[in-house]
Order: sequence, then C-alpha cells, then structure tokens
Amino acid sequence: MKNPENQLLVIFGASGDLTRRKLIPSLFELCARGLLPDKFVVLGASRTAYTDDEYRQMQRKSILAIEKGKPYSARQVDDFLHRVQYITFDSTRSEEYGKLKDRIRKIEKDEGIPDRVIYYLSTPPLMYELIPRYLEENGLNKPFGRSGWRRIIIEKPFGTDLHSARELNRYLCSVFDEKGIYRIDHFLGKETVQNVLVLRFSNGIFEPLWNRNYIDSVVISAAETLGVENRGKYYEGAGALRDMIQNHLMQLTAFVAMEAPATFDPESIRDEIVKVFRAVRPYQAEEIDKNIVRGQYTGHTVKGKPVPGYRKEKDVSPDSTVETYVAMRLHIDNWRWGGVPFYLYTGKQLARKQSEIVINFKATPIHLFSGQCPGGSCNQLTLGISPDESISLKFGLKLPGAGFVVKQVSMDFRYDSLSDNYLPDAYERLLLDAMLGDSTLYARSDALEVSWSVIDPIVQHWKSELEHNLHFYPAGTSGPQAAQALLGMRYDCICH
Amino acid sequence: MKNPENQLLVIFGASGDLTRRKLIPSLFELCARGLLPDKFVVLGASRTAYTDDEYRQMQRKSILAIEKGKPYSARQVDDFLHRVQYITFDSTRSEEYGKLKDRIRKIEKDEGIPDRVIYYLSTPPLMYELIPRYLEENGLNKPFGRSGWRRIIIEKPFGTDLHSARELNRYLCSVFDEKGIYRIDHFLGKETVQNVLVLRFSNGIFEPLWNRNYIDSVVISAAETLGVENRGKYYEGAGALRDMIQNHLMQLTAFVAMEAPATFDPESIRDEIVKVFRAVRPYQAEEIDKNIVRGQYTGHTVKGKPVPGYRKEKDVSPDSTVETYVAMRLHIDNWRWGGVPFYLYTGKQLARKQSEIVINFKATPIHLFSGQCPGGSCNQLTLGISPDESISLKFGLKLPGAGFVVKQVSMDFRYDSLSDNYLPDAYERLLLDAMLGDSTLYARSDALEVSWSVIDPIVQHWKSELEHNLHFYPAGTSGPQAAQALLGMRYDCICH
Repeated sequence: MKNPENQLLVIFGASGDLTRRKLIPSLFELCARGLLPDKFVVLGASRTAYTDDEYRQMQRKSILAIEKGKPYSARQVDDFLHRVQYITFDSTRSEEYGKLKDRIRKIEKDEGIPDRVIYYLSTPPLMYELIPRYLEENGLNKPFGRSGWRRIIIEKPFGTDLHSARELNRYLCSVFDEKGIYRIDHFLGKETVQNVLVLRFSNGIFEPLWNRNYIDSVVISAAETLGVENRGKYYEGAGALRDMIQNHLMQLTAFVAMEAPATFDPESIRDEIVKVFRAVRPYQAEEIDKNIVRGQYTGHTVKGKPVPGYRKEKDVSPDSTVETYVAMRLHIDNWRWGGVPFYLYTGKQLARKQSEIVINFKATPIHLFSGQCPGGSCNQLTLGISPDESISLKFGLKLPGAGFVVKQVSMDFRYDSLSDNYLPDAYERLLLDAMLGDSTLYARSDALEVSWSVIDPIVQHWKSELEHNLHFYPAGTSGPQAAQALLGMRYDCICH
Repeated sequence: MKNPENQLLVIFGASGDLTRRKLIPSLFELCARGLLPDKFVVLGASRTAYTDDEYRQMQRKSILAIEKGKPYSARQVDDFLHRVQYITFDSTRSEEYGKLKDRIRKIEKDEGIPDRVIYYLSTPPLMYELIPRYLEENGLNKPFGRSGWRRIIIEKPFGTDLHSARELNRYLCSVFDEKGIYRIDHFLGKETVQNVLVLRFSNGIFEPLWNRNYIDSVVISAAETLGVENRGKYYEGAGALRDMIQNHLMQLTAFVAMEAPATFDPESIRDEIVKVFRAVRPYQAEEIDKNIVRGQYTGHTVKGKPVPGYRKEKDVSPDSTVETYVAMRLHIDNWRWGGVPFYLYTGKQLARKQSEIVINFKATPIHLFSGQCPGGSCNQLTLGISPDESISLKFGLKLPGAGFVVKQVSMDFRYDSLSDNYLPDAYERLLLDAMLGDSTLYARSDALEVSWSVIDPIVQHWKSELEHNLHFYPAGTSGPQAAQALLGMRYDCICH
C-alpha cells in the first residue's frame, strides 16, 4: 500500500461531535500507523473562536479519551497535533470564504503542500448545498492553478427523498467533478462489511452456492438497543427507513447480491451495486402493507429501568407516526436471485444489539437421516458485522453414538482470534480512501438515486396512512409481532 | 433406536489381546449405556483353562484399566460380568465343537435366549477358514431348529490378495448367508468416518461443490508415529499397502467419492462403495512407479531416543523389502471425479500421528485481490479422523486494514466442543450394528474383491522389483522425499 499524496484536509463543523468522536481520533490512528502523507495538515473550521493551540488541546482530550488503553505515547499525540490547525469561520457567510482561501494558500506555502484540498462537511445537512455554493463563489471548488485537485466528503443523510437527492447531486456535480464527490456511508467503512466482497470473490467455494438454486432466503439486519437519544429532532424528519434501510442495509444488500465486478476498481464495483438496486421489485401500495412492517417503540421497563416510549422522547411529537422499526421483504428480480426473498430489518430499543447477514441455504432434496428438520435446512452462514464480528457456518453433523442421527453444529471464525486483531474504525478506512482518491466504498450518485426510488413510494404510502399499520412494540423486545410473522418462518426452520 | 434382539455372542480367541483391549470394554460400555438386549450372554472361548469366575476377574481388570476415570460404578461392572461366561476350547480340533454346541444349548435354555448366535473370530487369520469348517461339520453354522440365526464377524486381514480373499469369500458363503457375514474394518466404526456420509448427505451446501468442477484434489492419510512394535511377523507378510491402504484408506476413499445412495440402507450404501472401487483406474507396471511411492523407515534418533530401522525390528528380515510407507495417486474415472487426483498415504514412524481427509478446492477463475496465491486456492476442507477429531474450513478473509488484501483463515468445529462429547469406540459401534443386523459399516464381498484387484498388481510389481524403487526414510520424519514430491504440490498451493 502506498501512502496518499501530500494534501490538506479542511473540516467544516470542526468543533462538533463527529469531528471530536470520529474524525480526529481516526486521523490520529492513521498518523500513528504511518499512513498519512509526509506533508499533511488538518484545518478545522467552525464558528467558535479558538486559537490553534486551544483547538489542539481540545482535540488532545478527544484522542486520549478514545485511545485510552492503547499503546500510544504522548509524543505520538504531539506529532499528530502539530499537523492540526484551526480557523474561526462562519460557513453561512460567503464573505468569510476569502479568509479561508488565504489560510489555505498560506498553509500550502508554509508547509510546501501542493494545491490538493479535501473538504469534509461534518455539518448539518442544510449546509451541504450552501458550503459548496460559497466555495464556488470564492474560487475554492477548483485548484488555484493548473495542477492540484479538490475533493468533497458529504456526510449522510444525502437527501431525504429522490427529489432532494437528485437536486443535491445535480448541484454538487455542477460545482465539483463526480469523481471528486465522496458520499460517505460509514457502514461501508467496516471491516466486516468489506469482507463480504472478499469472502465472496476470493473463495471458490461460496460463489457456486450463491444463487437461487441453493439459497432459500437472506436476512440482513441492524438491531440497536438504544432509543433516539438526543437526536429526536433529526429522527422526526427521518425514521428508520431513511436512517438505516435506504443507505446501510441497502448497501449491504448490494454487496451480498451483486455480480462479480469485471475488475476490482471503484467504477466496476459501483456499476454492479447499481444493477442490484435496479433489479429490486418496486411495490404498489397494497404490496407495501404485505411486505413491509413499520413499528414504533412504546414505554417499557428494560432491565429494571423505565424506558420512555418514542412519543415521549425529547423533540418528538406526542402523536408522531415516525417509525423506529422496519422489517421488509425485498425481491431482486434477476437471474441470480429470482424467487429468493431478502429480509431487511432494523429497529431501535430492541432486545439485542447486532448487525448481521444471514444466508439461509435450501434443504437437501431428500432427507436420508433422522434429525434433519422436515422442510428445513441445517445450513446457515452468518456474517456478524458488529458488535459481534465473526463468521459462522451451521451444518449437520452425525450425532455421536448409534445410528445415523443428525445434529446441527457450527464452524466459527472470530475476528478477535486474528494475531493482529486491530480492526480500524470505519472512518479511518474511509478517510484514507478519500485521501487516496479511492471511491469504492463511497456511494455513487446513480446508486443513491435508484435506492431512493425504492424508498420513496414507501415513505409516501406511510404518510398517507397515518397511524394505520403502524405497529407498536414495547422497548427492549424483539420488535412488533407483525414483523416476527414476516421474518419468523426464516428462523424456525433451523433444526435445533 | 431400538435395542438388539436377545442373543448370544461367542468370542473365539477370548483370552487374546483384542478381546481384552477392545471387545470386552466395548461390550461393557454398551451394557452401561443400556444398549444391550435384555437377555444376552458373552461366551468367551479359547484354549487356556479358566473357570467362568477366573475369566470374569481377568476381564474385570481389563474393563477397569480402560474405563479408568469414567463415571461407572463397581455395580455396573458386576452387572455386565454376570453376562460373561467362558469355555475352555481348542478351536483347531473338530471334536471339541460338540462341547461348544452343548454349552450354547445350555445357555440358551438357562437364560431363555432364542437360538440367535454371533461368532466373533478374534483369532489369527489362519483360523478364518478352519473355524467355519468345524462349525459347519458340527451343525453350528445354522439355527438348531426353524427359527433363529447365525452371524459371523471376521477380523481383518480378510485375505492377503485377490485370490485368497475370493477363496475365503467363497468358502464362508458356502457355510453362512452373505447377509450373516460381517467383515470388520474398525476404521468404519469411527464417528468421524461415519460423519463423512452425514456431512455430505445431510447438508445442501457441500454436495454441489463435491465434484471435478470445484475440487482440485483429495488427500486421505493415516500417519502413525509408532513402528511395527511386536507385530513384525505379521507385518512382514503384509506391509503398509495391505495393512492400511487396501482396507482403511480405500474405504475412506469410497465414503468421500461415492454417489448419494438411493436410501440409507446397507445394500444401497455398499452398492455405491463398489461402484467407486470399480471406477479406480488400474495401473500398468510403469504407471505404478510414477504414481506410487513405497518407503521403509531406517534407524534414527527421535526426540533424543534411538529408534531402530525396520530391518532391525524383531521378527523382521535384515534385508526385508516390505514397505512401511505408501503414498499413491489414484484416479477415479467416472463423471464426478474424472481428472481429480486422490492422494492416499500412510506410514509408520512418521513425525505426526493423524488420520485425515483433506479436500483441496480449485482456485477462483480470476484473482481480484492481492494475497490470493497464484494458481492456488484459499479453500481447503479438512476432516480430522483421529486422534484430532475436528472439521475445519480454510477460506480467504479480508486482512483488516487498508486496501483489499486476502489472508487465509479457518472456521473450525471440534468434537470436544459437543456438550455430550462421548465418542464411542469403533468396536462399540460395530458390535452393536452386528447385533442389530446392520451391515452398513461392514465390507461386502464384492467390494473387498474389487479393492484387492486394485492392490494385487502393485504387490506383484513390487515383488518383482525387490529393492528397486524402495525409498528409505529416517524414523520420525515425514516420509520419503519421493513421496513429498508426489504429494507436495498439494500442500504448497495453500496461501499462508
């Protein structure tokens, strides 16, 4: 692996939560692991007034809090913080961008960094159009001279529906090159997610089974044990479908379902992702109710503590119909997957926190042994995404003793069994990729738009239905009963 | 599972080593586990004079030695020994069989056991024809009246070549029903061996891969760390090819290679075994030297202790050309396996004791990732037979960190992870099956004859070659270099 070229990273929203919890610690990790360029500066930009040193002290604390217990020295932290600078800057005022421009030029000159700049928009979504506009107005969207480049990283949510996503894409593409726009989905930064591609395409034994002939169903899930916490305001405008399904779980679906790319370059892979989304069967209103269950958590006592219902959360309307749970059955109408249901579900305030992919294989054509469950299969491949990071394959074994009786057991691989079991944070990987100019793990505009076109009709339908078909479930349980019915059969068929 | 019918088991060679180490302890285990019939007597028969009680005391010691540390009570041992009787009897003298007949009748009458008798020939091979002849001469080969049955269990070796095996079969079949003849191969009594069939035919995920399209090669091995010990006399007449390959490894080959049986009954399974043996490509003399390596161990220091070479062992000729090691490449010329080499090897005085089956899968058609070894595959399924009883699947994983680099890891299942991890001894299973009349795990005469027809030309060729092409290897190593060359490439292709 080569290091990225020398460059400058500007973070808008530099005094915010994401910067403190994720971006700065990830950049420090990259620095400590020797993965940053020789000449590299992080320029934090936000409204609050700090000197460089004040900002560094603040970020030192963030690093120490996150890196606690890891074998890094104070010297390593200092080395990194030397690369951090700060500019007090109001991104909502076009006239301030001249100041930013001067600072960028100064850093490039002082540090001998060629004119290469990444802008990271760690800001509320309403700035995603404003900042690019002001960057353009002030000549910051293109290199100052003939060489160099500009890239921009946009946090999710990228639009709230097909229309807004398309508008935002159109606008961004008028300001930056499509190749310079990095739409982040931090799920794709996870080791275990990327491994789906490696598992499928570096092994000869999975791909022959990976189709409608041998797979009965696929279950992709992201279950959370927390509620909306202090994000009620955002969540009221989003809901589980847009917060989790449209991006994270759809992306996982694409990784599971896609054809092998022609080569392993970003465009080939993203071509295949788009093809999967295009093959997803669109639902008419009546099919939505049959194939999708939405839920909302109600107050309940969880582990002895009272947990408020969603409607009692801060910044949430007392008659909100926003869903905190979604279970859906998707059909991918192509030659590989025709007839194989993909079940996606996600929810807040569930009993168990786990994201995973479960491949349920078909039963054997005949049952030669007792112990094989009727109509079912002993075979299930589970890819644990997080927090349990593992791979496990269930299969039938001869139960020791007389006769030939089958018992279901499993073979397991656990990431923590790796001798060097450091799993980089998702942001570490994604920041490094953007610096390297590798967009494999970033969403492309066409994929985003197609995924919104799957989601939009569902949002519209639910809006028209108000509370009808909104299934309530007590906090700390495994979701609405109606969802269990939709998903349930896929679990019961497993033997033991 | 139902228990066997009430019956009587006569063991010829009852004061011998096999009876003491295996048969009596296995019968005790079956008794303690409640798997014996209600009415059941073991009648030990051999030349040495013992009373019933003396014989029981002797066998009590055998049981206690073997069962040490297991949770059985003295009472359970007594309960079993009540079922044991003894007759002093010279099996080489026809006139003594009348005495045996009287004793059998008496036991049947005293104990109320219907006229069902199994004879177990735990004797030297030269008795395999004599005892049946005398049994026939004295009317012991058939039930005394209209009901009941007779079965006979024959230990290996069953013949020493095609001719002798055929003669023995012919003779036995003239005395007993083919269905009453149980030719034991204790390898087939092992849990991990039987599991090959369950793994293949209770799971939907292995069978689609289990053919020439996805499998590169199969390696089946039985490596031992001991020498010939005090069996030099027997071994001089046998050699590794006949001692291990003709029976154990050929049977394993059949389990790995066979088609799914129509139903899971003994005849269907044994039909499929014969089909595999019939498809094994016969070798001409010059092909034998190309595809088969024989070796013999020489004296060496192993773990600081001097180990004598084979020619210095007790009862071994100082210029013996008997092989203590064989590695061979078999071709199974049928639609499933055409072009897939099966490598079999076995040897004494090797570095590591392990019997296992290794399935090497083919490489992916293209290499999308670095870390995939050129021309090789990350995929290998290992079925540990003994002493390491396990299943392990090697596969490519994304090496955590930047880029997409593949690392080979494995998923594992270990028998000792089972909550009830008691693995019955091979003899326990086989004795129970014979009592139940289930011959699935016993060799059928036609299979035996076909397997000898594969082995015979090799034995003949080696005899004609004397020391030519006999490769010597120092004790405690991994066998002759020539064998490494034959097998070696199959190991080197694995990535890490």
